[in-house]
Amino acid sequence: MSLQQLMEDMGRQARQAAKALRTAGREQKDRALMLMADLLEENRQHLVRENRNDVEGAKEAGLSAAMIDRLTLSEAVIDSMIKGLHEVATLPDPVGEVTRMWKRPNGLLVGRMRIPLGVIGFIYESRPNVTVDAASLCLKSGNAVILKGGSEAINSNLALVSILEQALKNSGLPPKAIQVVPSTDREAVRILLEMEDSVDIIIPRGGEGLIRFVAANSRIPVLKHYKGVCHVYVDESADLEMALEICYNAKVQRPGVCNAMETLLVHESVAQEFLPAMFARFTDADVEIRGCEKTRKILPQVREASEEDWYEEYLDLILAVKVVRDMNEALNHIDKYGSNHTEAIVTTDYQRAQRFLTEVDSSVVLVNASTRFNDGGQLGLGAEIGINTSKLHAFGPMGLEELTTTKFVAFGSGQVRS
Amino acid sequence: MSLQQLMEDMGRQARQAAKALRTAGREQKDRALMLMADLLEENRQHLVRENRNDVEGAKEAGLSAAMIDRLTLSEAVIDSMIKGLHEVATLPDPVGEVTRMWKRPNGLLVGRMRIPLGVIGFIYESRPNVTVDAASLCLKSGNAVILKGGSEAINSNLALVSILEQALKNSGLPPKAIQVVPSTDREAVRILLEMEDSVDIIIPRGGEGLIRFVAANSRIPVLKHYKGVCHVYVDESADLEMALEICYNAKVQRPGVCNAMETLLVHESVAQEFLPAMFARFTDADVEIRGCEKTRKILPQVREASEEDWYEEYLDLILAVKVVRDMNEALNHIDKYGSNHTEAIVTTDYQRAQRFLTEVDSSVVLVNASTRFNDGGQLGLGAEIGINTSKLHAFGPMGLEELTTTKFVAFGSGQVRS
Repeated sequence: MSLQQLMEDMGRQARQAAKALRTAGREQKDRALMLMADLLEENRQHLVRENRNDVEGAKEAGLSAAMIDRLTLSEAVIDSMIKGLHEVATLPDPVGEVTRMWKRPNGLLVGRMRIPLGVIGFIYESRPNVTVDAASLCLKSGNAVILKGGSEAINSNLALVSILEQALKNSGLPPKAIQVVPSTDREAVRILLEMEDSVDIIIPRGGEGLIRFVAANSRIPVLKHYKGVCHVYVDESADLEMALEICYNAKVQRPGVCNAMETLLVHESVAQEFLPAMFARFTDADVEIRGCEKTRKILPQVREASEEDWYEEYLDLILAVKVVRDMNEALNHIDKYGSNHTEAIVTTDYQRAQRFLTEVDSSVVLVNASTRFNDGGQLGLGAEIGINTSKLHAFGPMGLEELTTTKFVAFGSGQVRS
Repeated sequence: MSLQQLMEDMGRQARQAAKALRTAGREQKDRALMLMADLLEENRQHLVRENRNDVEGAKEAGLSAAMIDRLTLSEAVIDSMIKGLHEVATLPDPVGEVTRMWKRPNGLLVGRMRIPLGVIGFIYESRPNVTVDAASLCLKSGNAVILKGGSEAINSNLALVSILEQALKNSGLPPKAIQVVPSTDREAVRILLEMEDSVDIIIPRGGEGLIRFVAANSRIPVLKHYKGVCHVYVDESADLEMALEICYNAKVQRPGVCNAMETLLVHESVAQEFLPAMFARFTDADVEIRGCEKTRKILPQVREASEEDWYEEYLDLILAVKVVRDMNEALNHIDKYGSNHTEAIVTTDYQRAQRFLTEVDSSVVLVNASTRFNDGGQLGLGAEIGINTSKLHAFGPMGLEELTTTKFVAFGSGQVRS
């Protein structure tokens, strides 16, 4: 069978499975999730063995230690997958919820009912635990999923999905609701992106290169974010102690992720007081500062920021710092260089807080809190399948609800249109 | 200036205008809408004159009488545009609404705030009044719009948009928030569909050919529907008098629109009683029936339906009729041949009503009401810019809310992530 045929078969089976999932109840889905957790527990040794093949292949291929670390299914990673399945089982089922209902003048009672999207194509890189996380969220929200993981993780992913399939089967759900592309051929991605009749939505997760490839080649709508150039603006009215903690957390707590701060904007009337204290904190944490001219007047030891720095997502212990004349300059800077991802203001001024919340065009806008809260779990969505920085469908972290849409339901008593 | 440059300039100006619209308040937007209505009133003669050029051109080009009718800006059509503007002004402003708010265990107060999508590309056919309808909905929802109307209507559209621009200007809003492509070159559509940096969403309205062209060539997400093959299922428990009225309304009241019934499914245990009565009503209204074998046993005078008939959107006084063994057969038929648009059941049975509402995967599902209610105005959305039968972003009629998205806003007191 050619790869094209194989993919099309997967698409047809996913569509069929999605139909059955539309009406699967919460109990049945949760039972399957709990069974998945049990089967992972039972098959630990098998998983570790299959994963070892991947890890050895990766070593032979000369992948970096960081990549190999991401690829490895340690006992701790298996624990976290099992815990994740339990957590998704406890989350409410979004499907069937009627979000609102109203009565028309003619007596027609109209509501909006949440329904699954259908079939999701999920394309990701080497972490095999993402396989289980994504599959569990798709299942709970009533969607079928076609998973295309990184080629380095193929043995791990096949082993994981065969366990998930078994759990679906034993719970009376269609086993083809969760499928993994069994090929490491990159052509499979291209074929998947053209299967618009059987796939409703594509979610890519990985580096900017992967996401740009997916966006450029997909005939199916893509929910994605390229990068997070997140800003914290320290206003002239800021509580500077609080600002110090928030900036430190936003930059240092986990610098390699998309919601870490990349640029700090400081109002000029507090820069003289704030920046030296900040610099001391950051220097202890090995953060390299790149500053604008005004910053360098206060901190002459820091390197000059270039125009490119303001666009940069460092994902590292590097921070661009700019001193701004006023809030307008901060807002204009964010508008020009930002990525519509996450921005925070530190202020004690009511009007500025409100203005920042209203005017900043980002998926998450915070007052007096760290940018690191742009995360489905942290914001209370339960768990997330990704973050979307395009505005269509869902803007920001996507949890179970964002994997659904709504249809209109109408209860009539013989209404006709005149 | 080349067409490419012209279009890109429009895109940049739209993006700039969208930025200003993000923070425009309801009063200002409504003032602009009311002023638009006043200026249309004042410029009736000018509009009729410009429209006459289009109509004469269309006549010379040999367009059909129906097309010319659609193209003509009669006094009644101008009245309806003015009325429409008043109505949109009275609708609530969706922008800024916080749809929900919740507190996290760490005290962070998180909500979702409605914001505009940004820039909308709206591509449509010859009705010039659609220009004003679409522009008013985009403005009210805080979006900038680039309008690409049919080439036959170019003079009318330019005249209309220059009036709308004037109203924006006089209300202190950016005049480039509403722009019309001043070229009749079809290449302009192709360019527009590739302007992914300046246009956030494409909404096409017109025949299936236009919509397929847009979907196949767009790099920007498209909200669209190809066709409406809408079904009414008359259940064995139906009140047959009610069923008669609903079916008649769904087919005859306005047969040329997407929410008219195209296929009637009748439970076999009521077919013998229902179909002759239905046939008599429909024959009076000149409706041609194409029936399945069982239908033709009851109504031998009707033509046989072919396999193609079940897929057909007639948009005309033609109806396909199928007698089904049970509700399962009805649901499977809808699943196979339907277009996820609008389906209705007529029943007095509680469980079947609930089952139909839950299982049918269409944007609007009705119990005991005509399919003709799939319409933004009829369902209570106020007014609609189109219907979407893909599930992403909005499923079904799209009103003002569907022209927005939500961002997360978070009120903190110094929260950092541990």
